[in-house]
Amino acid sequence: MARVATGESVLSRAVRILAVFGPEERALRVSDIAARTGLHVATASRLVAEMVSHGLLTREDDRRVRVGVRLWELAMRASPTLSLREAAMPFLEDLHAVVGHHAQIGVLDGADVLFVERLSAPGAVVNYTRIAGRLPLHASSSGLVLLAHASHELQEQVLAGPLVRYTAATIDTPARLRRTLADIRRDGYAHCPGFIHDEALGVAVPVTDGTRAVVAAVAVIVPNDPADPGAGRAVVPALRAAARGISRILSR
Amino acid sequence: MARVATGESVLSRAVRILAVFGPEERALRVSDIAARTGLHVATASRLVAEMVSHGLLTREDDRRVRVGVRLWELAMRASPTLSLREAAMPFLEDLHAVVGHHAQIGVLDGADVLFVERLSAPGAVVNYTRIAGRLPLHASSSGLVLLAHASHELQEQVLAGPLVRYTAATIDTPARLRRTLADIRRDGYAHCPGFIHDEALGVAVPVTDGTRAVVAAVAVIVPNDPADPGAGRAVVPALRAAARGISRILSR
Repeated sequence: MARVATGESVLSRAVRILAVFGPEERALRVSDIAARTGLHVATASRLVAEMVSHGLLTREDDRRVRVGVRLWELAMRASPTLSLREAAMPFLEDLHAVVGHHAQIGVLDGADVLFVERLSAPGAVVNYTRIAGRLPLHASSSGLVLLAHASHELQEQVLAGPLVRYTAATIDTPARLRRTLADIRRDGYAHCPGFIHDEALGVAVPVTDGTRAVVAAVAVIVPNDPADPGAGRAVVPALRAAARGISRILSR
Repeated sequence: MARVATGESVLSRAVRILAVFGPEERALRVSDIAARTGLHVATASRLVAEMVSHGLLTREDDRRVRVGVRLWELAMRASPTLSLREAAMPFLEDLHAVVGHHAQIGVLDGADVLFVERLSAPGAVVNYTRIAGRLPLHASSSGLVLLAHASHELQEQVLAGPLVRYTAATIDTPARLRRTLADIRRDGYAHCPGFIHDEALGVAVPVTDGTRAVVAAVAVIVPNDPADPGAGRAVVPALRAAARGISRILSR
């Protein structure tokens, strides 16, 4: 990455520093942070020190730096996702208890689905989503549900591609994506055997708020049985019941 | 609050802006933000605009400002609380299913307990904790468990007061607090009938990591029956089982 232009703001640099942390990079040295952001080590070091003083980052005994509890607290206390998460949790728990494997809820953010909550059983089928993780809209069952109810502009943007392939089953042509979105609007659910991983099947339905606008997608991930690709449809009634429950709470 | 000294950093001001949002103040006008932070309206307006451009804040159609999804994502992706939360969730679910009412997990942060997860039943007894909410250590069952295993320095600091009273039952003398902490270390749990609210009874036990250090407290909140103040002790075995399960996952 290029060195930072001198005019870049402190806030912009701080956001770039936060963005280098992730599920696989929870603890980083200042030199790693400098390398990954393109900031000079002295600049990164000074800014990290200030972020530590505010609790946005925290320094371990071994001098490695992590995201701070204070940042989490600031983000969560008035979180835009917290009310959705709290509305969804009892229904996700029930869904998870009945279906097993993974139950999750995601929202549209930019051209991605951003997952705000996930419940997983130990030993459940592979699932690429994480809490606060993202997937492209065309590839995941939650993303397809959100895209099917998104603005015309966003639909055209995604249809214009690129439609990245994860497996041989991923939707990778605009014609098939257009047809799938129409099917989802007609049927009320997305059914995605092996779209992200050969062994996983995602099924998702929309969640609406008090104005009937689609604000989230709730999904389950179950094993994909190539001999019986329709199997996941059995979970649709349970998913619909959960989505109705969440919608009812959100409409209050 | 006093006007800001000219030398205050942008980052410090940004943190102060984020800190004015809370569960009851999820959407604020720029003028409210200026009033609550003590920043000039022009300064607040400029900084809010920059924070919106980075997704740290978001502006609604009515011009009110909220915490942005991007801030939540940055805080959550590498969150220091996420691994604890993920380890705890299956056990909290079981605890919640068996005990009903509220099951929660909190960590020590400064001189507070910070709650990282909570599961609540609809219609459960009153509970003052929230996710990302705080309570003082001397007043809550989770806080007392954490304080009982905290450093000598922190214990002396809390014992030196003030010991804020929530109800007639709240611990409000250093002698009683010292005795209670010794009881908790001996018995392995805190039992707090009506300490925070007359109608609620908190029971908490410690969670340890691989080094046997106490890293969290897991608690349930059940109705407080003044005719039977010992009632909550029946949940201690279930709490201990949950804490052992969480500790086992954390020790891997």
